Amino acid sequence: MTAPNTRRRTRASGGRRSAQGAAQAAALPYATRRIPYFEVLDEAGLALIEENADTILEEVGIDFRDDEEALQIWRDAGADVQGERVRMPRGLCRQLIQASAPRQFTQQARNPERNVEIGGPHTVYVPAYGCPFVYDIDQGRRYGTLEDFQNFVKLAYQSPSLHHSGGTICEPVDLPVNKRHFDMIYSHMKYSDKCFMGSVTHPDRAHDTVEMAKILFGDRWIDPDTGKPRTCVISLINANSPMTFDDTMLGAAKVYARANQACIITPFILAGAMSPVTVAGTAAQTLAEAMAGMAFVQLVNPGAPVVMGSFASSMSMQSGAPTFGTPEPALVLYAMANLSRRLGVPFRSGGSFTASKLPDAQAASESANTLLPTTLGGVNFALHAAGWLEGGLAMGYEKFVMDTDQTGMMQTLLKGVDLSENGQAMDAIREVGPGKHFLGCAHTQANFKDAFYLSPITDNNSFEQWDADGRLDMAQRANARWKKLLSEYEAPPLDPAIDEALLAYMAERKAAFPDSNV
Amino acid sequence: MTAPNTRRRTRASGGRRSAQGAAQAAALPYATRRIPYFEVLDEAGLALIEENADTILEEVGIDFRDDEEALQIWRDAGADVQGERVRMPRGLCRQLIQASAPRQFTQQARNPERNVEIGGPHTVYVPAYGCPFVYDIDQGRRYGTLEDFQNFVKLAYQSPSLHHSGGTICEPVDLPVNKRHFDMIYSHMKYSDKCFMGSVTHPDRAHDTVEMAKILFGDRWIDPDTGKPRTCVISLINANSPMTFDDTMLGAAKVYARANQACIITPFILAGAMSPVTVAGTAAQTLAEAMAGMAFVQLVNPGAPVVMGSFASSMSMQSGAPTFGTPEPALVLYAMANLSRRLGVPFRSGGSFTASKLPDAQAASESANTLLPTTLGGVNFALHAAGWLEGGLAMGYEKFVMDTDQTGMMQTLLKGVDLSENGQAMDAIREVGPGKHFLGCAHTQANFKDAFYLSPITDNNSFEQWDADGRLDMAQRANARWKKLLSEYEAPPLDPAIDEALLAYMAERKAAFPDSNV
Repeated sequence: MTAPNTRRRTRASGGRRSAQGAAQAAALPYATRRIPYFEVLDEAGLALIEENADTILEEVGIDFRDDEEALQIWRDAGADVQGERVRMPRGLCRQLIQASAPRQFTQQARNPERNVEIGGPHTVYVPAYGCPFVYDIDQGRRYGTLEDFQNFVKLAYQSPSLHHSGGTICEPVDLPVNKRHFDMIYSHMKYSDKCFMGSVTHPDRAHDTVEMAKILFGDRWIDPDTGKPRTCVISLINANSPMTFDDTMLGAAKVYARANQACIITPFILAGAMSPVTVAGTAAQTLAEAMAGMAFVQLVNPGAPVVMGSFASSMSMQSGAPTFGTPEPALVLYAMANLSRRLGVPFRSGGSFTASKLPDAQAASESANTLLPTTLGGVNFALHAAGWLEGGLAMGYEKFVMDTDQTGMMQTLLKGVDLSENGQAMDAIREVGPGKHFLGCAHTQANFKDAFYLSPITDNNSFEQWDADGRLDMAQRANARWKKLLSEYEAPPLDPAIDEALLAYMAERKAAFPDSNV
Repeated sequence: MTAPNTRRRTRASGGRRSAQGAAQAAALPYATRRIPYFEVLDEAGLALIEENADTILEEVGIDFRDDEEALQIWRDAGADVQGERVRMPRGLCRQLIQASAPRQFTQQARNPERNVEIGGPHTVYVPAYGCPFVYDIDQGRRYGTLEDFQNFVKLAYQSPSLHHSGGTICEPVDLPVNKRHFDMIYSHMKYSDKCFMGSVTHPDRAHDTVEMAKILFGDRWIDPDTGKPRTCVISLINANSPMTFDDTMLGAAKVYARANQACIITPFILAGAMSPVTVAGTAAQTLAEAMAGMAFVQLVNPGAPVVMGSFASSMSMQSGAPTFGTPEPALVLYAMANLSRRLGVPFRSGGSFTASKLPDAQAASESANTLLPTTLGGVNFALHAAGWLEGGLAMGYEKFVMDTDQTGMMQTLLKGVDLSENGQAMDAIREVGPGKHFLGCAHTQANFKDAFYLSPITDNNSFEQWDADGRLDMAQRANARWKKLLSEYEAPPLDPAIDEALLAYMAERKAAFPDSNV
């Protein structure tokens, strides 16, 4: 499933590792880990959760709502279907997934240099998704517009540490609900050449996404070796936890699966409300729901790419509000990452979560406490890695550039320790010796430029210099940075014939039915 | 080396784990990990760095400055001493350490319920150390005073997620340099009953620390089973990297070692200035320096407790300023933690570092990017875990309570996943079923209170509620919290006879020599 040219690129980057630094690595189309996974469960613990997931599927079952075709598919596969409740024999879902789902796949980008590998040792950092509001420190919080949406597409395009343009970065609330998907998809296609995500709010909108991708990718849409479509779109199919899939999501999943496009099956869980209040209970339920969804996709089209998703937040015992950056969701993430590797499918979870309303210390610590587990645990598709504020209700401009600084650091961390002769630096230690300093030695001069991750927005100056610079905090520096980036933005060139075809498709489709806000 | 009563306490806490939550665990005198270590090097990588450390000790050597006794000790041990340069045969330092240094030891607290275990699977979180300035958002940055010092002793005493009172939390600049150690030690003894750290700025001040500890601990000072002093003081002995120890630190180390008090031997390294600009080079040099210091302590008094320290920051290539929360120092930490376990000594590193001048998003993300590695890597003595701002130049009031929130989360994380029947929660999943919610089910009601870490300072409310509450950011909420804590502070009772004896010792010693600021 890995394209040969991608394999070559990965090897080449490994060879360059000791000679070049963070800046070069950050420009790679995706991150590849050279450090181990952090795991919190042993073999017995993992097996116990797998056993419990099978028990949930067998005894409790999963509801597939308002979709008779889905129920028939399950009947044909040997499941016990009572009304809309589907109970799967132990092991059936795992068997269906392992029989045909790819362990790793390539998502095509408009610019093939930006194709991403999803799965295996690779991590793709992706902007936040689904926020109705936007926030910046100048104007505060307000509903998102198409202009905001396009701004974030541009900022993601300009961020070397993000590998993907994302999907519904923020809702363009100035457009009718039933037509805004056209403008979102077109914006990803026009203002970025990175990979993007498809519409899932109606099967017809999934179909529109696929049609527009066919126009964009042209000859590249079909892989001549297999005769099947290449995977050019990835989409987010959420379960209605607990243990329910609805017809909207099932309908979109079927459209994408039949076109060989990728589906991320994600139980979306506020633990304590949509799952038990415990880590092990939430993990077993998440595994059960995700396996049911992924197995369904394999039944619809064996071999269609799927990603196992997990979204789990904790909850305030005082208010019932979701809480982020707490230890319990990190434990769920570590467990689910491990379970996905055992199942043999790519994994999506984590990001840069916070409940904070502004880009303050709460936002930063909660995000770090999510993004480090995302990275150390082995997430392959790190949705929500940049911009997320207010429990996902707002997309923050300052938060976005703060988060992309962090995703840059994560990619340096993933490179691990350089143990080459240059990395060992024994000649430098011999040259300098006790009581001297290393600043001027040959090894330091040769390596200094790329030796350490350098943030574009932190202030490491003296108090006096910081004072003279106006005593700015992180959010103020981030504010200056996103404005500078947008002022420097240049669109990647798009073939005018393709652009025209996309616009024509949109115009025709938009004219075919009236505006609506459902 | 582990006191039997401590062993019992550890077991008891394990038994309670599934029934009680984060609040109870945080009240334990120290944290005990039930999750694996995160490690970035394999056996070959670790052996390579050990090999390089031995090469540094053998070929390059370590300077022991202005201390003829130290040089004679090394000559007697078989080292090659040329002037002040000491070269150790390969393996000598490791052999000396492994022959007598304890793998784990108990530091006594005034309140024996607060004794801490240093080493093994245990982590002790300790306030920041050595800051000349203090900072709060009302008054900004200013020199520290004794009142500030005492405030932080009180706040640490009131913080269940800190296990230690620390040492020179901030410099009480209103007192003469040569006498302020009396007031600092006395403040730890008087305003807290947790463990504390000794003075290291002159051998006489180390001696004063030991004498005051003898008064405080009285009959408990000598262990009747061994006839030797119990370890009641731990102190920070920094190497003057690269590869140098000076007479001040050596003198203090000798005083503490001969009294069986614990020494943390820490190479203090700004990588690129005091070590090579690479992770592997910095790790090898740190290991060499720390082993030389710990072996020296074992030569002075075999069996005296030692802790291997590592402090490594990265550097801005633009300004030469130290940078914090970057990936490279995290890699050094993970490597050194692993090397300390192989050597068989407790490990000190990490904390909550930042270069930020105020408790903003930079401070929070840099701290999280240090504290999570501190926790996941397996640091035993986590100095600088609370309060640190501005590269260690300032102790922040708001930062302190923000950091203790984070150390509380880390202790929940260290407990790992509860796999008991209650933790698995299968009955809850069976009871609730597809499409329902878990809020009211029996399992949720029974577990909700302790299910998730609850921060005292984050805001998880709706935007509207947050707006109605005055739109406070994290720093403003932390400001209110430290003031509330100080207003509620009650001193732990201290035997008036001991208090009197401490004051008499200080008065007599202070009168014996004139004030001086060196």
